Amino acid sequence: MPDRFSFRLIATDGAARTGEVATAHGIVRTPAFMPVGTQAAVKGVPGEDVRASGADILLGNTYHLMLRPTAERVAAPGGLHTFMRWPYPILTDSGGFQVMSLAPLRRISEAGVTFRSHLDGAMVELSPERAIEVQNLLGSDILMQLDECVRLPADPAEIARAMKLSLRWAERCKRAFAGAAPGRALFGIVQGGDDYGLRAESARELVDIGFDGYAIGGLAVGEPQDVMFGVVAEIAAALPADRPRYLMGVGTPADILGAVARGVDMFDCVMPTRNGRHGLAFTRFGPINIKNAHHADDPRPLDPESRCPAARDFSRAYLHHLFRAGETLGGTLLSIVNLFYYQDLMAGARAAIAAGRFADYAVETTAQWSAKADLQPE
Amino acid sequence: MPDRFSFRLIATDGAARTGEVATAHGIVRTPAFMPVGTQAAVKGVPGEDVRASGADILLGNTYHLMLRPTAERVAAPGGLHTFMRWPYPILTDSGGFQVMSLAPLRRISEAGVTFRSHLDGAMVELSPERAIEVQNLLGSDILMQLDECVRLPADPAEIARAMKLSLRWAERCKRAFAGAAPGRALFGIVQGGDDYGLRAESARELVDIGFDGYAIGGLAVGEPQDVMFGVVAEIAAALPADRPRYLMGVGTPADILGAVARGVDMFDCVMPTRNGRHGLAFTRFGPINIKNAHHADDPRPLDPESRCPAARDFSRAYLHHLFRAGETLGGTLLSIVNLFYYQDLMAGARAAIAAGRFADYAVETTAQWSAKADLQPE
Repeated sequence: MPDRFSFRLIATDGAARTGEVATAHGIVRTPAFMPVGTQAAVKGVPGEDVRASGADILLGNTYHLMLRPTAERVAAPGGLHTFMRWPYPILTDSGGFQVMSLAPLRRISEAGVTFRSHLDGAMVELSPERAIEVQNLLGSDILMQLDECVRLPADPAEIARAMKLSLRWAERCKRAFAGAAPGRALFGIVQGGDDYGLRAESARELVDIGFDGYAIGGLAVGEPQDVMFGVVAEIAAALPADRPRYLMGVGTPADILGAVARGVDMFDCVMPTRNGRHGLAFTRFGPINIKNAHHADDPRPLDPESRCPAARDFSRAYLHHLFRAGETLGGTLLSIVNLFYYQDLMAGARAAIAAGRFADYAVETTAQWSAKADLQPE
Repeated sequence: MPDRFSFRLIATDGAARTGEVATAHGIVRTPAFMPVGTQAAVKGVPGEDVRASGADILLGNTYHLMLRPTAERVAAPGGLHTFMRWPYPILTDSGGFQVMSLAPLRRISEAGVTFRSHLDGAMVELSPERAIEVQNLLGSDILMQLDECVRLPADPAEIARAMKLSLRWAERCKRAFAGAAPGRALFGIVQGGDDYGLRAESARELVDIGFDGYAIGGLAVGEPQDVMFGVVAEIAAALPADRPRYLMGVGTPADILGAVARGVDMFDCVMPTRNGRHGLAFTRFGPINIKNAHHADDPRPLDPESRCPAARDFSRAYLHHLFRAGETLGGTLLSIVNLFYYQDLMAGARAAIAAGRFADYAVETTAQWSAKADLQPE
């Protein structure tokens, strides 16, 4: 295991890149998709299945874990890796995004954010320094700065104010991070909404402060895909080539392919597991809603050539039955199917970039979705 | 694989027996515990974990499966083994017990039982002949006769009427079973409530008809343990030594040890999975309610020496956290813990009987439960 964080670029293909992020807990092959383990568990999926899907790295949620079981309880046995028995790389968000979306009440000041816990109503303070302290207690390999994420559409002045506050918090996070264990990394987060000028200013200032990697925050919050792609293209180009780039909370397979094409290296999203629990399977041939009645008699697996045992071995009729019968095993199996699908999508992207044919890969992958697997059986 | 059903007695120790049931899908080591896969799934537990626990055989529920997805849909791909991908032995109940406990309306006649489906309100007929047909469609290795199970306490005349009706249904089931695929077995079910005379008559008449194995039904329905043990001891002694004996729906670890001591070979119960989903773990040291607050900081696993990865590798603090956080993974992990516990209990019983020390095994096992694992951490 490397004793310090590093990023090695292996190949580029247009703006798309493939490389390796080295952490104290192992290598992350990029472009990488990080399954979300919000509460120290990927919802409904045993850790060995997450690993078997091909995931190199998990995302943990600072907001949730600091409230329950608390950062101190996770730290006691040796951090999140030990607590949830995931001995591979972990990235933690800073909690800022969840404070905005989950806490029933919050006050933002220069010092930080004070919010009411959605669990017990207690008032909790989260400063840039505390966000770093909590993530260090969790034992994260990649820590995120605390930022303020503004919901779009928003007033330009409001976007600018939040972006500049996030920059001042970024500096404080970097100072607080100075004493972190060797091998850990801190990422800054580019904000600025859909304003290219503000985004560019945010990126420039963050690079001046200097981070191990750079995230693009505040996207995939409801804006059209072309707006997101526009910001991503501009910002990725403005970030240093020798540092990983992470597009937070993204997204659909099409979002990911589009962002990889524009130079993004890392992604996270709850889509594979959330959709899986609700009966939507991602396959090479496009999404399949397994709850549809016409699957009841379909003996075909979701994908006979999948690496994923659940996609390959069970009939659509059986998976349909599990959902109709309210058996939670159905949600678990489809979550696993989707985690494998996302990892295979990324593995394909990495191979295509290395081979200089990423544009073709994106076109072929997208075209195959229209093969419409969700049809009546022959 | 054997092409016909058989039972081989390996050793006896007092009334306790150990042996092997051979079916077309493999060997069942007895005394055996059958996890319950009501709706073609052991609730919340992937099939490979059920198998890894040591289970030789699963129980499927005729009542549930005939209503959803329907016996015909299970039969289409080749039966329950193929449908749920459990290529090992399967026993199916006849549906009689669930009709009594789940259907909102039922009419019993000489012909059979007509009931209203709890799913869609449709009226469904289940005759002895249809019960065998459905179980043959499911592809079961061990079929159960249709019987009428009376809730205790009940009027002696009512118990006698139901017992005698069950005997007539037993004969019809045997006739209907005549054309079953080779290797399949049919078990008769001894009824008669808590009346030793009626029970003895039921057993005698069933043996006269002649079955591949004999079940004791209508127990563990609320009567005291000593009443159950009394009936079990009488009836097991009255049944032929060369056929397996199955005590339906039992039970707690103590119930099982007591019934093994009285000559029972097979058991099924939802306790391991139902309790697991609700946070109760069975361990060598007794039951542990993982939701209790004092586990929040307990770094110890449930049992460091368990064969079960979930019992051995995760801290009680982590399992506690999963339940507190509402993560379904907690229920899955504790269900797996409990399935392993039950299988280890049976494996220990088999070894002890073979060594002629079952009584000591039962005493030692029971004594260890009082070690009270559910204490504050040291």
